[in-house]
Amino acid sequence: MKNRVGVGVVGLGTIGTGVAKVLIHNADVIQQRLGFALDLVRVADLDLETDRGIDLGAAGVRFDDDAAGLLADPDVDIVVELIGGYGVAKQLTLDAISNGKHVVTANKALLALHGKEIFDAADKQGVGVLFEAAVGGGIPILRSVREGLAANHIQSVHGILNGTTNYVLTEMESTGEDFEVVLKRAQDLGYAEADPTFDVDGIDAAHKLAILVGMAFGAEITHEDIPTEGIRGLLPVDFELADEFGYRIKLLGIAKSSEGPGGETRIEARVHPTMVPKASMLAGVDAAMNAVEVHGDAVGPTLYYGAGAGEMPTASAVVADLMEIAREIQRGSNRPVAPLSYRPDHLAPKPQVPLDEIQGRYYLRFECVDRPGVLSHITGELGENGVGIAQAVQKGSGGGSVPLILLTHPAGEGAVRAAVAAIDALDDVTAPTRVIRIEEGL
Amino acid sequence: MKNRVGVGVVGLGTIGTGVAKVLIHNADVIQQRLGFALDLVRVADLDLETDRGIDLGAAGVRFDDDAAGLLADPDVDIVVELIGGYGVAKQLTLDAISNGKHVVTANKALLALHGKEIFDAADKQGVGVLFEAAVGGGIPILRSVREGLAANHIQSVHGILNGTTNYVLTEMESTGEDFEVVLKRAQDLGYAEADPTFDVDGIDAAHKLAILVGMAFGAEITHEDIPTEGIRGLLPVDFELADEFGYRIKLLGIAKSSEGPGGETRIEARVHPTMVPKASMLAGVDAAMNAVEVHGDAVGPTLYYGAGAGEMPTASAVVADLMEIAREIQRGSNRPVAPLSYRPDHLAPKPQVPLDEIQGRYYLRFECVDRPGVLSHITGELGENGVGIAQAVQKGSGGGSVPLILLTHPAGEGAVRAAVAAIDALDDVTAPTRVIRIEEGL
Repeated sequence: MKNRVGVGVVGLGTIGTGVAKVLIHNADVIQQRLGFALDLVRVADLDLETDRGIDLGAAGVRFDDDAAGLLADPDVDIVVELIGGYGVAKQLTLDAISNGKHVVTANKALLALHGKEIFDAADKQGVGVLFEAAVGGGIPILRSVREGLAANHIQSVHGILNGTTNYVLTEMESTGEDFEVVLKRAQDLGYAEADPTFDVDGIDAAHKLAILVGMAFGAEITHEDIPTEGIRGLLPVDFELADEFGYRIKLLGIAKSSEGPGGETRIEARVHPTMVPKASMLAGVDAAMNAVEVHGDAVGPTLYYGAGAGEMPTASAVVADLMEIAREIQRGSNRPVAPLSYRPDHLAPKPQVPLDEIQGRYYLRFECVDRPGVLSHITGELGENGVGIAQAVQKGSGGGSVPLILLTHPAGEGAVRAAVAAIDALDDVTAPTRVIRIEEGL
Repeated sequence: MKNRVGVGVVGLGTIGTGVAKVLIHNADVIQQRLGFALDLVRVADLDLETDRGIDLGAAGVRFDDDAAGLLADPDVDIVVELIGGYGVAKQLTLDAISNGKHVVTANKALLALHGKEIFDAADKQGVGVLFEAAVGGGIPILRSVREGLAANHIQSVHGILNGTTNYVLTEMESTGEDFEVVLKRAQDLGYAEADPTFDVDGIDAAHKLAILVGMAFGAEITHEDIPTEGIRGLLPVDFELADEFGYRIKLLGIAKSSEGPGGETRIEARVHPTMVPKASMLAGVDAAMNAVEVHGDAVGPTLYYGAGAGEMPTASAVVADLMEIAREIQRGSNRPVAPLSYRPDHLAPKPQVPLDEIQGRYYLRFECVDRPGVLSHITGELGENGVGIAQAVQKGSGGGSVPLILLTHPAGEGAVRAAVAAIDALDDVTAPTRVIRIEEGL
């Protein structure tokens, strides 16, 4: 039995620096919980100059730009991959595995795209791959699904998985400002990237949802299989009306398991702005915080909340993974917990519910000319498609284009989309209709 | 390597029945996650007659009243103790351990009282003891603190740990009814026991908090060390005023770690009705649900929410523990995760912060005679003790006894208690003053 386990970090950016800080500053509590030392022995990064506010030399940590040397170092038991991206990160991860190193990563894009290849390689090599920080930042959400709820058939997952968009939505709601104004402020504050596409268009949330779908349902899926809609195009009036109707707007990653017509298990996964009941726990998640609600057949609803990003919260998750693998190493185990909770032979693609079949209530915002007959044209198209109307609100009046808002009764997405396509073709309608799905039962 | 792990359940009450149901009905997903079978092989209970809605015989499970035989059965690898109480349960748990069986229990009272003895015995024997279901029912809160946040120095824990009291508080708030009326309804609905003392006086929450304190801070503590105050004596006016002031009232278990005057780590633990800011996540936890907010030095605030009791949620937690231990058995490990997260040699009693030193804001409800000079007498006593007043409200008027409510500025508990003692001795004051602590920063 080794009396220490060695860690090597590749990539000393924000998260890498946080990991180094936690390993060094919290070494006491880590050792008290493990019963042995978890030592940061080596760090590799191309940039050796930037001052990251941490003295690796004083802590006895070798710091250079030799990533290949780190991967081959016998003192390194676990490699932390924190360089990001798909290309170099993938090769480095596979190299570490083939060197017999366990791997911890926070790279959700890499896992969403190449997870299967990486997990298969790790399984063959008998090493662990953990990635708690890839979803929900510091929240131990993957560990909770993988182990805490492992006795359940998971029924649904609803997650606020992206802090940037949640910040923008919270600010738009509380200030009544336009998307562009709030996004600019988020960028100035460092909550949003200069190129915000990845966040505001829902791609980051879809990457994370793909990982959760694997873990919750044993279903192999990539983010490309997930219908994804971002938060661009939401207007202050949407937040105002949501409030009147008793909802708040959140960008949710939603995944559900259900029985298909032939008795087979089908998966439904999507990312889009969603109206959630004000009294729900998810509605209370503000600013850059994340939360995931998971329903299991035995446990019922559960929710996990915390910081979804940031140097130290993300590092907390990375080091928790390091501690779990360190325990395995200490035990001499060659049977780590399966990365996606299901053993590899029980992971498989599963049929998806076509988006058209999804049932729910819808918020529809039409931009239309303010003249007699418009409402009847619009409601006529909805009626023809069998979509019933629960509430109608017209905002402003007096010439020009005005928003008309309808709340539907429960309807199929296919019917709603068909009606909206017909409505958008009307002369009365001046801009594409905004559709926001309503999610009840939270 | 065994291709199955065997489970024996002692006590086929509500939770035991739930555990049997989950093991039998969810055997598919359990095996898909573990890679081997987790079999319920044997159940023991004194009552062999009651119909529990589950056919153990059809599932091939031996069911009799021979608990000793179960403990000695070589096919039983893990014993689930679900008989409750302190006496027989303790002996049975120790017997199981000395027979080399791993143990899973949901018995918080047993652990709060005899945890150390049980954990020491298990450590010596090299078997695991897990008890996720003892705190927060189905919520994987212990696993989250023990492993998910293991890299953190935990700074504080705030928990809604008892569903019965949360149900009563939620109902009192929404209906404006008196405590006794709501308690009676809770009893009729099965949310409260015929003798509700254990719940409404905060004892159950203190048991759970004692376990959390051990796991969060490595501090040995029993519920008897925890100042505990229940929800009796709260009036509708308290909920009304809490709402006006921007708070909701929750029975919280609170534990914090801080540095004492000599640089030593000190622990603070208490259970009492607490005013929490309306916008906080804990304020959104309604009815019989539980939630625990945990702050770590790296991760910041995190929160875990779910059903705190009930047959199936509790069974979900018990079976998650069974799966964790089954993995250990399969690995041939003799080094289970420490039950309280800290290795036994790092668990020790720690000095507690005297209640008098605790700082905070206070809600004070005085029952006093409606005559001139009363307010000045009361505020005079507060002033003499250095307690500043932020807001004052008088409800009703016109003779007799009226409630006068004051919200203080931050003050020491000792000063507030001294002032209240002096005020309660005044002729103007007709009943003991109700003190409700306010907890900010949630």
